[in-house]
Amino acid sequence: MLERIRIVLIGTSHPGNIGGTARAMKNMGLTDLTLVSPRGEARSADAISRASGADELLAGARTVDSLEEAVADCTLVVGASARSRTLPWPMLTPRALGERLPNELTGPETRMALVFGREDSGLTNAELQRCHAHVHIPSNPDFSSLNLVTAVQVLAYECHLAWLATQQAETPSTQEEHQPFGIEWDNPPASHADLERFFAHLERVLIAIDFHDPATPRQLMARLRRLYLRARPDQMEMNILRGMLTAMEKHAGRTPGADSGDMHP
Amino acid sequence: MLERIRIVLIGTSHPGNIGGTARAMKNMGLTDLTLVSPRGEARSADAISRASGADELLAGARTVDSLEEAVADCTLVVGASARSRTLPWPMLTPRALGERLPNELTGPETRMALVFGREDSGLTNAELQRCHAHVHIPSNPDFSSLNLVTAVQVLAYECHLAWLATQQAETPSTQEEHQPFGIEWDNPPASHADLERFFAHLERVLIAIDFHDPATPRQLMARLRRLYLRARPDQMEMNILRGMLTAMEKHAGRTPGADSGDMHP
Repeated sequence: MLERIRIVLIGTSHPGNIGGTARAMKNMGLTDLTLVSPRGEARSADAISRASGADELLAGARTVDSLEEAVADCTLVVGASARSRTLPWPMLTPRALGERLPNELTGPETRMALVFGREDSGLTNAELQRCHAHVHIPSNPDFSSLNLVTAVQVLAYECHLAWLATQQAETPSTQEEHQPFGIEWDNPPASHADLERFFAHLERVLIAIDFHDPATPRQLMARLRRLYLRARPDQMEMNILRGMLTAMEKHAGRTPGADSGDMHP
Repeated sequence: MLERIRIVLIGTSHPGNIGGTARAMKNMGLTDLTLVSPRGEARSADAISRASGADELLAGARTVDSLEEAVADCTLVVGASARSRTLPWPMLTPRALGERLPNELTGPETRMALVFGREDSGLTNAELQRCHAHVHIPSNPDFSSLNLVTAVQVLAYECHLAWLATQQAETPSTQEEHQPFGIEWDNPPASHADLERFFAHLERVLIAIDFHDPATPRQLMARLRRLYLRARPDQMEMNILRGMLTAMEKHAGRTPGADSGDMHP
């Protein structure tokens, strides 16, 4: 899907912005860059410096003389635009654009162009009117003009997320919603029984060090339960906490409880 | 909500990136910028040029010497990070982060810091381990390092969308299942400074009871940081944990540390 998305920059003045666009595209897995009549040198030292490793994408950029040429083979042309124009046009948010992509870019002949205008003046009305739709990045109405590269980055990011969603839909994630840590965690979660043994041990230690009086509990154990259960300790963390309790018992001059031995991490 | 979001840049080399960050922030309605030991001149001509009208935001940026200072009053600290680290840490997508914000940033004492590292090397492990969670911008695994400004732009954009959603939805947002605490929680969250005092106190106690040897740390403190940061302790829980440590110190025959008195719940 991402290989069918073209970034088109019209009349760019600053070569650094062309290089920065190449980097932002490569970061998001886009590869097709077309420049329409750039006003600066597209392969200057500044452009290459800002490309920061996306050199081959920059070198492979096509340069043409007109928007027509740049988007001739595209089945969807979307212009990046400020919100208000004299003639209202179909307007998408970046997110809504992303959500449309999987359906838009299915066939072998499909291709989308995302068109960005000049740093100082954006797209002309004539250019905007060659687009199927306009996309506006929500922003501070008093300061709404984004830098060209950061605008490319935001839209490329939404394209990347839309593509990721298609990949994940094919291989459903096993990650549970309520899990504070996901499948890449380094240790399996502690069991309910482990947690209950920990709470019993914790309560013994708190009594031994005169911090907790079961006769006036003041919700102490309830609050500690809520805290530790919320954290969803893994098995290694459980062993560390149990080991700490055992060490504390020894220093508090008590004999460790029967099931609390050998719990050091 | 947006006024309670702080962007923290650590050790930024290129003044243009500081100016570009100011512009990206103002575009998205953010105003609070803190610089930790910038390596370049934060108000250079290049910075002002890239700020492109966000001059007053740039001029109002606070400069401090440490991450500690930058985030001491924050109740949620999120570090921008590449995906893989030796010790896995709670990881959010930019979207999931945005979705959490309306519940995170409700109270008058709430404040979130989004922390960005150096252009060349990002955040150190020590810096990452001071964060409640990390946020990773989905990207091309073969070319995943975004430009600093475009990374700020993407995260600021997600914050802006989350804020817009609160403006547009009259009904309160639904609390996520894995949310450690939301609008109905009974105590305000502990600040970063509270948590750091707790970790320092915890480490002293673990050394005193011979459980922890700083000469062979075996990631012990890192694992404990990860556990407690994940749980997002509230102020009452923090007092309980500090009180427990003080009681343990007394029983271990040590004099409690200077700032650990009067911490019983």
